[in-house]
Amino acid sequence: MQVQKAVITAAAPNQNTLPLQQLVDRKGEVKTALQLVVEETTAAGVEEICVVIRPGDQDAYEQAAGTHLGSIVFVEQSEPNGYADAIHQAKSFVGDDPFLHLVGDHLYLTSAAVPCARQLIQVANEFECSVSAVQSTRENKLPYFGIVSGPLIPRRSDVYEVERVVEKPTPTFAEQELVTPGLRSGHYLGFFGMHVLTSQVMAAIEQLLAEGGRPKATLSDALAILSSRQRYLAYKVHGSRYNLGLTYGLLNAQLAIGLSGKDRDQILTELVDLLASRTEEERAK
Amino acid sequence: MQVQKAVITAAAPNQNTLPLQQLVDRKGEVKTALQLVVEETTAAGVEEICVVIRPGDQDAYEQAAGTHLGSIVFVEQSEPNGYADAIHQAKSFVGDDPFLHLVGDHLYLTSAAVPCARQLIQVANEFECSVSAVQSTRENKLPYFGIVSGPLIPRRSDVYEVERVVEKPTPTFAEQELVTPGLRSGHYLGFFGMHVLTSQVMAAIEQLLAEGGRPKATLSDALAILSSRQRYLAYKVHGSRYNLGLTYGLLNAQLAIGLSGKDRDQILTELVDLLASRTEEERAK
Repeated sequence: MQVQKAVITAAAPNQNTLPLQQLVDRKGEVKTALQLVVEETTAAGVEEICVVIRPGDQDAYEQAAGTHLGSIVFVEQSEPNGYADAIHQAKSFVGDDPFLHLVGDHLYLTSAAVPCARQLIQVANEFECSVSAVQSTRENKLPYFGIVSGPLIPRRSDVYEVERVVEKPTPTFAEQELVTPGLRSGHYLGFFGMHVLTSQVMAAIEQLLAEGGRPKATLSDALAILSSRQRYLAYKVHGSRYNLGLTYGLLNAQLAIGLSGKDRDQILTELVDLLASRTEEERAK
Repeated sequence: MQVQKAVITAAAPNQNTLPLQQLVDRKGEVKTALQLVVEETTAAGVEEICVVIRPGDQDAYEQAAGTHLGSIVFVEQSEPNGYADAIHQAKSFVGDDPFLHLVGDHLYLTSAAVPCARQLIQVANEFECSVSAVQSTRENKLPYFGIVSGPLIPRRSDVYEVERVVEKPTPTFAEQELVTPGLRSGHYLGFFGMHVLTSQVMAAIEQLLAEGGRPKATLSDALAILSSRQRYLAYKVHGSRYNLGLTYGLLNAQLAIGLSGKDRDQILTELVDLLASRTEEERAK
């Protein structure tokens, strides 16, 4: 399986400005979140990129793409019909090829030598099927993620045969139906925001959209259908995901990137200065 | 002197996206930098606001203004002719009235009960003249700021009679010409990015622009002229300024705001978690 295309979704209302936010990368260069997501993609050897955006956002995204603009095709999701529908906007871009899918409002970081998206693509290449990156996710985070469950495949400690996919399950449902052996108690396999999908996911989304009733079909819904039709795995990625949409999401992502990069000492020094100056001020009161 | 108008400049190339960046305020609410600057203004009782922007930026700024949109008039600087020219775009908005001027890419923070802009306006009201907020600035920061010098006025420890205004002086020049008594050695009075100006500054800018030769006239140039024509003071503000345009400017501003607000403990906890998880990872290698 050769993955040469990527689809990045950035069309959700309220989240569409997150990829435009500025951060400093591990080398100390100022970049937009969009550039960092695109670089996760290109570092995995994927150079043809489709970004799904809201109508009216293209100018801002073109500016935010920087030097990567030439690799990007923009496609609009004309109505806010949910996550699965956003991915479906890339149907003609994808054609019959497998593709890497990233969400536009998450950043990824690893201390491993291989970046997260490249790790995932290596697994997809090895098993020749759809694979979602997952990470062990505490029960209290269930309201934020799609959750999968299933057994480890033989002789691997990080690849699971997915049997169930459920979007944002309740803790009770998860405890009864979604326990995955080998994880710590109260932990589940939660989506990392990164997938390699075969083009058949588009047919699964079409089935969902045709069923109606759930106008905001999620990717989890589509993956549940896909998993009933073809092999679908989950890979416990070596790395961390930072959701920029949380209240301190940008701060946490920036700290994580900064503290793992070349400016770690500078950031720690400034932090200590800041804490010291506040203490001084409080003492002076 | 009644200050009821404010002019915020946000038209400098490369800095025009900074006011659109998202931060979390001291109460834990997600806001754009523009909203935070506008709130510094409204907290000082100034409700009529003119924002000087680059052509093409108005849509993004309108979105970023949030609930303050109704208080804001946008004016475009059609050519990137520098800082003084940007302020001059607000001439008809200002009319004959004194105005508060803030730069759109700085945030301000104080542990005093009175916000920085309000402190400054109180001084302008008391002395009925133009006043620039300044802070003690180390020699190594001279390349970033306009610098003023002059004696303290009688019976005040924080208000100076300005005799000289020089934009970004060299250390040698500063040491020879701009030493202000009472500051620590190697420290100067640097602009804080916040001024109360009489409408006569517009005539000073016009003189500068007519002289030509310096097509990118700075505000310091204009204030040097203004100070030769009418009383002009500097006020050492109680607070800190955060320049979002520096490499880690957004991170430092967010940390300073967050650590002085209601979520201080949460931020410190996440920071410790982050440092601990990195140490764990490194130990595991």
